[in-house]
Amino acid sequence: MRKLGVAVIGATGTVGQRIIQLLNNHPYFEVTELFASSRSAGKPYNQTVNWLIGGEPSQSVNDMIVRGVDQTPDSSLVFSALPSEIAAEVELRNALRGKVVISKSSALRYEPDVPLIVPEVNTNHLRLLNKQKANRKMKGCIITDPNCTTTGLVLTLAPFIDIGLKEVFVNTMQALSGAGFPGVASLSIQDNIIPYIPGEEEKIRIESKKILGRYARNSIIEASFSVFAFCSRVPVLDCHTESVHLRFDCQIDVHEAESILSNFTSEPQRLKLHSAPEKPVIVMKQSDRPQPRLDKDNGKGMSTTVGRLRQGIDDNSIAYTLCSHNTIRGAAGSSILDAEFLLKTGLLSKLAEQ
Amino acid sequence: MRKLGVAVIGATGTVGQRIIQLLNNHPYFEVTELFASSRSAGKPYNQTVNWLIGGEPSQSVNDMIVRGVDQTPDSSLVFSALPSEIAAEVELRNALRGKVVISKSSALRYEPDVPLIVPEVNTNHLRLLNKQKANRKMKGCIITDPNCTTTGLVLTLAPFIDIGLKEVFVNTMQALSGAGFPGVASLSIQDNIIPYIPGEEEKIRIESKKILGRYARNSIIEASFSVFAFCSRVPVLDCHTESVHLRFDCQIDVHEAESILSNFTSEPQRLKLHSAPEKPVIVMKQSDRPQPRLDKDNGKGMSTTVGRLRQGIDDNSIAYTLCSHNTIRGAAGSSILDAEFLLKTGLLSKLAEQ
Amino acid sequence: MRKLGVAVIGATGTVGQRIIQLLNNHPYFEVTELFASSRSAGKPYNQTVNWLIGGEPSQSVNDMIVRGVDQTPDSSLVFSALPSEIAAEVELRNALRGKVVISKSSALRYEPDVPLIVPEVNTNHLRLLNKQKANRKMKGCIITDPNCTTTGLVLTLAPFIDIGLKEVFVNTMQALSGAGFPGVASLSIQDNIIPYIPGEEEKIRIESKKILGRYARNSIIEASFSVFAFCSRVPVLDCHTESVHLRFDCQIDVHEAESILSNFTSEPQRLKLHSAPEKPVIVMKQSDRPQPRLDKDNGKGMSTTVGRLRQGIDDNSIAYTLCSHNTIRGAAGSSILDAEFLLKTGLLSKLAEQ
Amino acid sequence: MRKLGVAVIGATGTVGQRIIQLLNNHPYFEVTELFASSRSAGKPYNQTVNWLIGGEPSQSVNDMIVRGVDQTPDSSLVFSALPSEIAAEVELRNALRGKVVISKSSALRYEPDVPLIVPEVNTNHLRLLNKQKANRKMKGCIITDPNCTTTGLVLTLAPFIDIGLKEVFVNTMQALSGAGFPGVASLSIQDNIIPYIPGEEEKIRIESKKILGRYARNSIIEASFSVFAFCSRVPVLDCHTESVHLRFDCQIDVHEAESILSNFTSEPQRLKLHSAPEKPVIVMKQSDRPQPRLDKDNGKGMSTTVGRLRQGIDDNSIAYTLCSHNTIRGAAGSSILDAEFLLKTGLLSKLAEQ
Repeated sequence: MRKLGVAVIGATGTVGQRIIQLLNNHPYFEVTELFASSRSAGKPYNQTVNWLIGGEPSQSVNDMIVRGVDQTPDSSLVFSALPSEIAAEVELRNALRGKVVISKSSALRYEPDVPLIVPEVNTNHLRLLNKQKANRKMKGCIITDPNCTTTGLVLTLAPFIDIGLKEVFVNTMQALSGAGFPGVASLSIQDNIIPYIPGEEEKIRIESKKILGRYARNSIIEASFSVFAFCSRVPVLDCHTESVHLRFDCQIDVHEAESILSNFTSEPQRLKLHSAPEKPVIVMKQSDRPQPRLDKDNGKGMSTTVGRLRQGIDDNSIAYTLCSHNTIRGAAGSSILDAEFLLKTGLLSKLAEQ
Repeated sequence: MRKLGVAVIGATGTVGQRIIQLLNNHPYFEVTELFASSRSAGKPYNQTVNWLIGGEPSQSVNDMIVRGVDQTPDSSLVFSALPSEIAAEVELRNALRGKVVISKSSALRYEPDVPLIVPEVNTNHLRLLNKQKANRKMKGCIITDPNCTTTGLVLTLAPFIDIGLKEVFVNTMQALSGAGFPGVASLSIQDNIIPYIPGEEEKIRIESKKILGRYARNSIIEASFSVFAFCSRVPVLDCHTESVHLRFDCQIDVHEAESILSNFTSEPQRLKLHSAPEKPVIVMKQSDRPQPRLDKDNGKGMSTTVGRLRQGIDDNSIAYTLCSHNTIRGAAGSSILDAEFLLKTGLLSKLAEQ
Repeated sequence: MRKLGVAVIGATGTVGQRIIQLLNNHPYFEVTELFASSRSAGKPYNQTVNWLIGGEPSQSVNDMIVRGVDQTPDSSLVFSALPSEIAAEVELRNALRGKVVISKSSALRYEPDVPLIVPEVNTNHLRLLNKQKANRKMKGCIITDPNCTTTGLVLTLAPFIDIGLKEVFVNTMQALSGAGFPGVASLSIQDNIIPYIPGEEEKIRIESKKILGRYARNSIIEASFSVFAFCSRVPVLDCHTESVHLRFDCQIDVHEAESILSNFTSEPQRLKLHSAPEKPVIVMKQSDRPQPRLDKDNGKGMSTTVGRLRQGIDDNSIAYTLCSHNTIRGAAGSSILDAEFLLKTGLLSKLAEQ
Repeated sequence: MRKLGVAVIGATGTVGQRIIQLLNNHPYFEVTELFASSRSAGKPYNQTVNWLIGGEPSQSVNDMIVRGVDQTPDSSLVFSALPSEIAAEVELRNALRGKVVISKSSALRYEPDVPLIVPEVNTNHLRLLNKQKANRKMKGCIITDPNCTTTGLVLTLAPFIDIGLKEVFVNTMQALSGAGFPGVASLSIQDNIIPYIPGEEEKIRIESKKILGRYARNSIIEASFSVFAFCSRVPVLDCHTESVHLRFDCQIDVHEAESILSNFTSEPQRLKLHSAPEKPVIVMKQSDRPQPRLDKDNGKGMSTTVGRLRQGIDDNSIAYTLCSHNTIRGAAGSSILDAEFLLKTGLLSKLAEQ
């Protein structure tokens, strides 16, 4: 199969770098265009990027001349990893010009006609795109990915959505890479915890209820469970850890819950998408797992690893700890999995300008 | 005032070291006897201790010959910082011989006739000691301190106990020094979180319900609220951070809660005990506080610092984050505050062998 | 004694904060004026500073209105903790107007008529100030302090300067606080070493040769030994660690070297200056010391702690490791010690405008 | 090609784990026997190992029953990763019984008839084995690998050995994994540096002079350069960083030195051994590299990465910083590269019992 050329917008940031890393030798896609701010425009990629992750870009990416975000890609599929401040304008312009934009930015994530997708959970929400295209008179469209803390969590909530989930408590211990570069000052986090991440708790609440909401008549009816989140930054490089307590409106058995989580699979698995982990949720039995440093790469960074599954505060509750790679499953990997889904189901060609 | 000579048993461990540090130049007490395992017995303190904390012991402590734990102190007041495995036997023996033993060990903490004390919260539980002395035919007695995670938490629960506290969720992010020395291997915790501390979650649940329980007819009726805890180890040297969510059986106003916490004082404050912090609970307004490295020494390590106080999951709930110094308020400082209370109220001379 | 009011310029930065902290309850000086960039000017100190160190400023400092650096203090003694980019202009202007400026900035440190002072080592270099005032037609004057890595090192070189020091190898492992705030990104230094600090190696070489140089006829003849430095950043909050190898032009005995270092005292000790450590150099015998976290506060942060003193690569060489608190002895504490020296010797009143 | 079955002795320790990890899917070798202490003997590997590194063993290794070190392997090739205390006895016994033992232990490393091998540097020292077998009347033989800090260093010294290397200063900043498990207590190294590693400085001195020594008449004449080492432990998980200063007996040009290092290749490269990195020494130009976290995996963990190459203290000197993966090139990877060399050159079958 000939690979589909794709554009990466915001190519020099930390998410952009991960997209490029994960698309290296990808079987379906090939990075053929890079876009970034005017500071980088006109330079070969390797002369403007501050590459922060392992390995290095392919020779062809390294030599590629970065273009300004004001320009329009030739590719019909565009990955956007722009900072939120400028994302809305650029993404909407690209969609107007017929591009299918898959965005990691939070700028448009909460718009009622913009689907917020976790491919194992709610690809049926892509049906919003018809309304979106019509409403906004766009030849292309915009699909968004959730915040990095939400994605890992939602993969463990989805299997329970139909059995009376009522209340979600989550306490995150979030990795440094989630704040981008330069992000958190070492002087702030060395030998320390910062018990606050601006906007994060609200994002988890709103996004998990939207993603797990029900599609009805061109809109999403948000899920009815309550969510309360505490978000802290911890001195860990990659991979978010989350303590989760779920309460149901009926009794829940721990063994049954384990089996539900462990057996959860969905369309990406059935379609055998390249980036789909064999198991979206891996359940570990060791008492002291999951741990972010040891479990971040499970399922090539695309699985949520769950451990310490046990009864919660009462018979209607369960509790567990999860780890999820914040820059793979929580960012670049999710965008790529979206794209794989669009391609393999034929949606991509329908959504892009004819 | 002439100082009262006191004995420290388990003097070479991390809690023993803190007791010695905090009793340096103490206005009421003076360390006159040191006891430790047979490995240390017969040696001057500074030739057998692996001193891990700032500063250093006084010359007189450094030169003091350590005695074996099988020997009996002359002092009537004994601080025990023994490992749980051997604590019960040694502490009971000392109490039999007329000593007032203040213990940081968990060995006897859960016995129905052993008071588990946080001096701002439940000194009325000391009335159990009459029963204890009678039951066990001991001339002295044993008083215990809670686990380091419980103490900081309970100081923030106590002010709410009479207004319908129903449910406590707590997620701890615990410092390395809580595990003693050598404790946690650097290879395990570097760039990592360990989401499990053996026994800790159970301790928080049982202890907070006992401490906040009601004294009635020579026994403690445990408090009726439910508790669920997640305990994790984080790469922070000192000071535990805890995310707390409280649910009441009626509406609770955040401003009122803040005022309740902030104005909480108790007997140690009224008695102006040397180690009593001016405010047992300090409430901070900055959005990103408390932080363990910045707030551990508030109130000389004896205050619990609370921040991010806000409404919880519903109108009946509040949420906050707290920091509490695990080896000062959570261990050595609490034992010393107990002793100060006993001394200043005259209880000490009544409890020791006549 | 009535305290002398002093001004702090650059009061909101990390060095300015330390100066304020160390002058809290200082017996000779009192902070009466604060200056900072236009961003802070006009605001009370506690509403514009991002206080990063333990404790907090006094109420009077917290409420003090910060003024712009373009304004001239009333105080005759001015501590400057400005960034190098703007320091030269502001400091020269203050000196022209009759102020005695003690500067931590590197901007003027290398000027031939500007003394670079370590009070235990080269207060005789203050004789340069006559030339400086005359040359520059200034009613006041400027005195500078060395780079934080140089100060700790020079205290251990000074005792050897007259016995044929020929070659200095130094490898620094520098703390995060040396880079100011926000300084080093956590994403860069977490679980890592950065083996390069711009300009640092050159500073150590030039500064140590100037400080240990000989005053002759209104100028400094730099010392003749060679210096080679490797400078690395390490994930440690405070206190620089340096491995040092010295080669002499004759044999050197390790025991003699130890005695020379250990017995070294100088004018600040004889004058019993408030901030002068009893021992400028403390020599430890334990095989695994000094360690930055354990030894940073030796001599209230003003002593250099030396350990692992041993023979070097040949009979003419010795080697040792040192720790020195980079923001106390390496910055704010040194400026204050300079000021104490000027005050107690009567130089201050001679140097300030008559 | 059918794979050669090999035994791993000391299979549960950190080096043993790495050997197993690196031999997973190895083209020449297959792990068929595991040996460990009596604590593990009789158990399946995955029920006795505390696996500390990424990934996990193959199913066949996980299920393999571990045998006691007192038993003799069937394989003729034995990797020994035993603690030094017991290594000598076990390795000698295996060699007596005809095994070719490749050892990471330091127990026999300094014996005059035991070759200490870095495959790119001194495979000619393997000629010692004839003497060893004869001397000790062993049907097999013992080959040893250097200490983890020495290997990375020696790869950068070897290219200079013939141009008058006179003096080596090295300052190591060593990773936590070098101390094994549990190794360094987190309470000791958190926010700290430990400037001492028992025995390490001596090892670097002795081993580098032996490895770079000259083979003559059945013995090794140690190299004539002097070595002085400072060894510190730093809070980094994997990969040692070393600052190196070399002095020659003649002028050395930095560009020439760079070319010498960069072009260095040797027999493992010519033989295209599976674990041989394309470049044993990689020279980076960026001013702030190499960094352990970013460069540890260069050449699959088998290359030494050099940076900051510059003139040293005088015209006869150069200086640089290197990073080398301490558990791959510094331990397991070197043993495997030795074995690959023995196999591909046919030496293995000559050395094992006929």
